[in-house]
Amino acid sequence: MLDRRAKPAGIVQATFVAGATGNWKIDRLEAIRGPSLATASHLEVSLGPIATPPHAVWILRGVTGHERYATRAEHDRLAAGQSPLDRADATRAALIPIAKSGEWWELSQDERRAIFEDDSHHIAIGLEHLPAIARRLYHSRDLGEPFDFLTWFEYAPADAASFDRLVTRLRKTREWDYVEREIDIRLAR
Amino acid sequence: MLDRRAKPAGIVQATFVAGATGNWKIDRLEAIRGPSLATASHLEVSLGPIATPPHAVWILRGVTGHERYATRAEHDRLAAGQSPLDRADATRAALIPIAKSGEWWELSQDERRAIFEDDSHHIAIGLEHLPAIARRLYHSRDLGEPFDFLTWFEYAPADAASFDRLVTRLRKTREWDYVEREIDIRLAR
Repeated sequence: MLDRRAKPAGIVQATFVAGATGNWKIDRLEAIRGPSLATASHLEVSLGPIATPPHAVWILRGVTGHERYATRAEHDRLAAGQSPLDRADATRAALIPIAKSGEWWELSQDERRAIFEDDSHHIAIGLEHLPAIARRLYHSRDLGEPFDFLTWFEYAPADAASFDRLVTRLRKTREWDYVEREIDIRLAR
Repeated sequence: MLDRRAKPAGIVQATFVAGATGNWKIDRLEAIRGPSLATASHLEVSLGPIATPPHAVWILRGVTGHERYATRAEHDRLAAGQSPLDRADATRAALIPIAKSGEWWELSQDERRAIFEDDSHHIAIGLEHLPAIARRLYHSRDLGEPFDFLTWFEYAPADAASFDRLVTRLRKTREWDYVEREIDIRLAR
């Protein structure tokens, strides 16, 4: 407390607040696996620390961080193809909170990597949807949050079907055998 | 906030509070690299969430979690050799808070793994000091703490020289080129 540092460079803290107001309108909120979240009309997405708003329906928090599985070659392919957030025509978004099972977290790094990419082609599938689908991954597990990850996607209305194909393919992978809770929240602005 | 889960199984939250009281006496506090922490006579180590104590000199927090670099074979060797915390004869301890550089965190997973083990033999060096030195790693980076890791060690007085050799060897590795802050706190109970 007498010795805080600013968030390290490259770490972004995000807070997602569902309620009656917000910069995104919630079009649909669907529990894919496990218990749902309560419905709300809007989602306010804030970067940086915020005070707890008084009338929230729910609040989820996460932080960006270093990459956990990508190799240098994969990282470079992702970096070359990816789009920034906040493109003017990206008026659709999705927030997908996910919790993985205890069994997943007990696996060693090489076992998780093998399932993630060698078996499930998570990065390769994502690469096929660049640059249309912009993406940012927030980690929540260390924060004591109800989910382990919050993935945020932005895309143009014309790319909504492409986004549906992306999540459908990922949900059929072996990696998803370890997903014990997933909510799919679709948004518009 | 309306949808918290308990800490996932296997995650332990620890709070280290330096002050005038505590279950461990601070024998020595030395800044190895970067700015030091203030000195205090005692350290209180609490597992689980605690209220912020009013007279703390400093407070550090971390959470245990899944392994970031060990392969299954390395994990099994570590698990076979390691000792539990809180052995009756382990009346000496060390708390070593470490922050790594932005350059480290920009590396991809395969690059970090190569430096950590192939070059620096971090796991192999640690294995040589089992079962005498018990160890638990807490992660702090996602929590917005001043350090990225807090490593806690416990050993018998007769193994203090062995512990000194362990940290001396690790500090000479290539991995340590990426350490930009390190404090070495030695304790007794």
